[in-house]
Amino acid sequence: MEYPSKLIEDAVTEVAKLPGIGKKTALRLVLHLVKEHEGRTLALTESLSRMRQGIRFCKVCHNIADNDTCMICTSHRRDKSLICVVEESRDVMAIENTGQYNGVYHVLGGVISPIHGIGPGDLQIESLLSRVSMQGTEARELILALSPTMEGDTTAFYLNKKLSGLPLKITSIARGIPVGGDLEFADEITLGRSIAGRTLFH
Amino acid sequence: MEYPSKLIEDAVTEVAKLPGIGKKTALRLVLHLVKEHEGRTLALTESLSRMRQGIRFCKVCHNIADNDTCMICTSHRRDKSLICVVEESRDVMAIENTGQYNGVYHVLGGVISPIHGIGPGDLQIESLLSRVSMQGTEARELILALSPTMEGDTTAFYLNKKLSGLPLKITSIARGIPVGGDLEFADEITLGRSIAGRTLFH
Repeated sequence: MEYPSKLIEDAVTEVAKLPGIGKKTALRLVLHLVKEHEGRTLALTESLSRMRQGIRFCKVCHNIADNDTCMICTSHRRDKSLICVVEESRDVMAIENTGQYNGVYHVLGGVISPIHGIGPGDLQIESLLSRVSMQGTEARELILALSPTMEGDTTAFYLNKKLSGLPLKITSIARGIPVGGDLEFADEITLGRSIAGRTLFH
Repeated sequence: MEYPSKLIEDAVTEVAKLPGIGKKTALRLVLHLVKEHEGRTLALTESLSRMRQGIRFCKVCHNIADNDTCMICTSHRRDKSLICVVEESRDVMAIENTGQYNGVYHVLGGVISPIHGIGPGDLQIESLLSRVSMQGTEARELILALSPTMEGDTTAFYLNKKLSGLPLKITSIARGIPVGGDLEFADEITLGRSIAGRTLFH
């Protein structure tokens, strides 16, 4: 692809590095900015710079925060005895949006994946261990809400082993047929798990 | 959607203003930047700012350019007697990529669209008229390469009327069945035009 300007080409190259955005989409976005008023681009770049430079991570749960401690960890209305272990900040957002959870979180920052060179040391596992084993901890239950992938299962297994000596209940989120999902379209493993994990009808 | 940080929320709002990008995609892109090194965001915002502030438009054809005149208009190898009239800079890029055209361009900056409040005065039509009617002009043929929409046809009709007095050949790009396209899937108008505009078999 020939670009009419080096400036356009550089911008397209940078935008196309974003996940799920190819050269064609990047070009469309860049040409859109060219057509719009200059203030539009300024507002976009300023908000991204400000975000990236100002973003903090909660020192307790490692979730994205505006300050040293996130709003969930500082809230008095949250149940500190319940810790939900997730991979990323976006999982916290997803669970928060359900409005069904009143505990706190622990963001690992990923899952153990030897193929990608991610070991337990690269994740916030040590900090979870010290969080639940330190004196005066309120933690009573740990809910593992990791991806149902090999990496997620490996991480859950690893955590379970590491935490086995502690007086903690370790649970995992339910796997089953999605609400509104049709039985005949579910894969065998999900369907199998949904039968094994059946609950009382009420 | 609840965001863990005001900074994230502001960035998502700005990114979601881009065409074809919703709040979910914007969030994915923003969280990607959070995960990546800070220099990545800097490179992205810098390239966009530099592009938007540095971009120029060719004073002859109004295509995107690095200087006052674009590379196509300044090239001695381009046939100045042939001017292809297009809507946007991206159309120039598309035609350039075919490698089949050796003339120059004229970018209107859109098409006449009363619904969107775009009249002939909002487009680079006056500049086209003076370009082809000024003394010593090399222009001999104008190729109209506008969208086959009502707005595109209206613009073509308007241009044709305005240019009627001049010693210029006015042509339009061929409409027909795309190469590799199947006859049975073509719409009636395209098929009709492809028969009316048939060419000699050779």
